[in-house]
Amino acid sequence: MMDLPPVVKNAVTALGRLPGVGEKSALRMVTAMTHWRASELQQFAIATGGLADLRECGHCGMWTEEPVCAICLDPRRAESGILCVVEQVSDLLAIERSGQYKGRFLVLGGVLNPLLGVGPDQLRLTAMGDFVQREHIQTIILALNPSVEGDATCAYIKHVLPAGVAVERIGFGMPIGGSLEYLDPMTIGKALENRKSF
Amino acid sequence: MMDLPPVVKNAVTALGRLPGVGEKSALRMVTAMTHWRASELQQFAIATGGLADLRECGHCGMWTEEPVCAICLDPRRAESGILCVVEQVSDLLAIERSGQYKGRFLVLGGVLNPLLGVGPDQLRLTAMGDFVQREHIQTIILALNPSVEGDATCAYIKHVLPAGVAVERIGFGMPIGGSLEYLDPMTIGKALENRKSF
Repeated sequence: MMDLPPVVKNAVTALGRLPGVGEKSALRMVTAMTHWRASELQQFAIATGGLADLRECGHCGMWTEEPVCAICLDPRRAESGILCVVEQVSDLLAIERSGQYKGRFLVLGGVLNPLLGVGPDQLRLTAMGDFVQREHIQTIILALNPSVEGDATCAYIKHVLPAGVAVERIGFGMPIGGSLEYLDPMTIGKALENRKSF
Repeated sequence: MMDLPPVVKNAVTALGRLPGVGEKSALRMVTAMTHWRASELQQFAIATGGLADLRECGHCGMWTEEPVCAICLDPRRAESGILCVVEQVSDLLAIERSGQYKGRFLVLGGVLNPLLGVGPDQLRLTAMGDFVQREHIQTIILALNPSVEGDATCAYIKHVLPAGVAVERIGFGMPIGGSLEYLDPMTIGKALENRKSF
């Protein structure tokens, strides 16, 4: 970085830690922020610093400021008897955005990865058995990403769950708005495999 | 935005005010920040909030924490007798990155735009005459962007400067690494017009 004032360098370094932000984007952000009023800068600092108050829901791992999140407190979701297992909170948010699911969630916090030292104890997996029993879960939807680790984690979950629970995995195939021409061979394979009578 | 905890909503709104950051990117940033330690969040808030201490150089308008910036204090640049006029600090930084210029700068703070109420008094234009005299500037390089307003501002500057000062504008043509095939007609026109014997 060229010879910039220390406060600019510090801000560029801080913003550069955000995902998808390189030094060039960070400098562009700083340029915009130099036009903000002092009160706006203060507001920005308070709002981002406020994330320190964020907790994980004691039941499912969703973001919350209370001991239990709004989704877990929703009685209609509790009565559904369905649990959707995801890797990250951002996956939960993506499913919520679809508006197509009204059951409970469990955020694993990742997938099994022995090479990186991620075993069942590093994930919200040991608590899952209790969750399923306590909340009378009848159906589990595995919404883990399709990868070697995701597949292995699904197999593990299926293995450790009591036999009475139906375990399903989300469907794989061609995305809506996609174009066959540009689709990868693996997805085309899955789409052919998962065809339905029409 | 869906029903997220208030601290998340506040952080998404704050980050969404940065240039090039929409709600989706802001949420992705927040997701990353939830994995930061409280001390890292605090550091981020301090570094970005620190931009409130940034000033404009009293001579040229560059970012500085002192009354006068490092570029203006550099005696070799002062002796060069050359002044490069730019619209924004980010333009100055781009020229500095090229490493091809070692004179003084003047950051106008924009270009003349009567429709938006931007006249000479809204820009660092009135101070330019004094700057040129006081610093014994012999050559002015106009590095304003090619636009109707940029062209008009260049014409205005040329008009108000004393006759003894050489006024030049940066060259327009084909960018290095560009491809004629994809170049816009205006740039091709400029490149033809600005051809040099080879």
